[in-house]
Amino acid sequence: MANDTNVHWHEHSVSRSEREELNGHKGCVIWFTGLSACGKSTVSNLVDHKLHKRGIRSYVLDGDNVRHGLNAGPGMLKERHGEEYAKRFGLGFSAQDREENIRRIGAVAKLFAEAGTVTLTAFISPYRRDRDAVRASMGEGDFIEIFVDAPIEICEARDPKGLYKKARAGELKGFTGIDDPYEAPAKPELVLDAGKKDAETLADEVIAYLVKSGKIK
Amino acid sequence: MANDTNVHWHEHSVSRSEREELNGHKGCVIWFTGLSACGKSTVSNLVDHKLHKRGIRSYVLDGDNVRHGLNAGPGMLKERHGEEYAKRFGLGFSAQDREENIRRIGAVAKLFAEAGTVTLTAFISPYRRDRDAVRASMGEGDFIEIFVDAPIEICEARDPKGLYKKARAGELKGFTGIDDPYEAPAKPELVLDAGKKDAETLADEVIAYLVKSGKIK
Repeated sequence: MANDTNVHWHEHSVSRSEREELNGHKGCVIWFTGLSACGKSTVSNLVDHKLHKRGIRSYVLDGDNVRHGLNAGPGMLKERHGEEYAKRFGLGFSAQDREENIRRIGAVAKLFAEAGTVTLTAFISPYRRDRDAVRASMGEGDFIEIFVDAPIEICEARDPKGLYKKARAGELKGFTGIDDPYEAPAKPELVLDAGKKDAETLADEVIAYLVKSGKIK
Repeated sequence: MANDTNVHWHEHSVSRSEREELNGHKGCVIWFTGLSACGKSTVSNLVDHKLHKRGIRSYVLDGDNVRHGLNAGPGMLKERHGEEYAKRFGLGFSAQDREENIRRIGAVAKLFAEAGTVTLTAFISPYRRDRDAVRASMGEGDFIEIFVDAPIEICEARDPKGLYKKARAGELKGFTGIDDPYEAPAKPELVLDAGKKDAETLADEVIAYLVKSGKIK
């Protein structure tokens, strides 16, 4: 129909600041990163809950709602869209697939932020380059990178889904922290000590950051 | 890291109905479909504006914000992600690429609806099968298909971006209505007579539908 050059960004008739004014807070992306079972999902959902109680519009993007739809794997796409389609677009866990996984999540998080939502993402997102690309795609201050820092020994001891066990047994390949690297953020906006503090305390630290940085009141 | 079977949907700690209660209205997807230049974008932005004035949380997904990020073309992806990556994931205008374009938009619109947002999408979305797949992915009543019905002669006379002209000249291939089919919805929730009525009137018809169907007050 048209190539890239036929597409030009134009302002929505309702501006982002008008949406933020209606909401009474800023939109932004709170990007949690850390090892599997470090507490990203628990903390992000707790922050979401606390924000909601304050009347703030927030939403969590995580594996549970993204891997079933937007970033479905080949297995899920095959049935409805066919094998060739699933092979091309279905996301697995190769470096390239992870890159696209994070790119799409970043693009969606950006849309949510533009809609005036405090958007929380809870993905391992192990590669610094991929996270930095998401940061670069957004406006200054829109991307809040939070390193959920827990020693791998603690994550592995928790292992709620038995994934570390499978990875140690060689049943899962390319598992972050075992046979694939985790690259901690160089300059995160916030580091949460998830090895020592409980989720409640960590969630409050995130809320305090949002207040301090003027995203919410 | 994990295959599809390691992923299980779980409830957000804040439920959709709690988000809708905070907003004072339901989340849903209003899916506009129709020929290029039929008025989808104008009407959707006008509806968005009217909803915003009523204090309703709404958002428009359209080519302008989606084609620059989530569904970027090969040209845009190449610079940052390399040629092979761009070739695989960059979306052009083949039938398969259009299918994936609509699939991703549907998945994102679903997330917005779950966040309690009245979500408007403004894409030609010419193939019935692709739209039906989006409908099938959502809960009953969440997908409101609106056919923006304008004769191609009128769309072509408007031609704000000169795309019909290019298509007639053979400079754009696979252009909907010229050398690629447009499949009108079989059972849309609403048909807008965009050949006879102005955008203001059509937007009010959409608002009236939302009130009548209980999505908003």
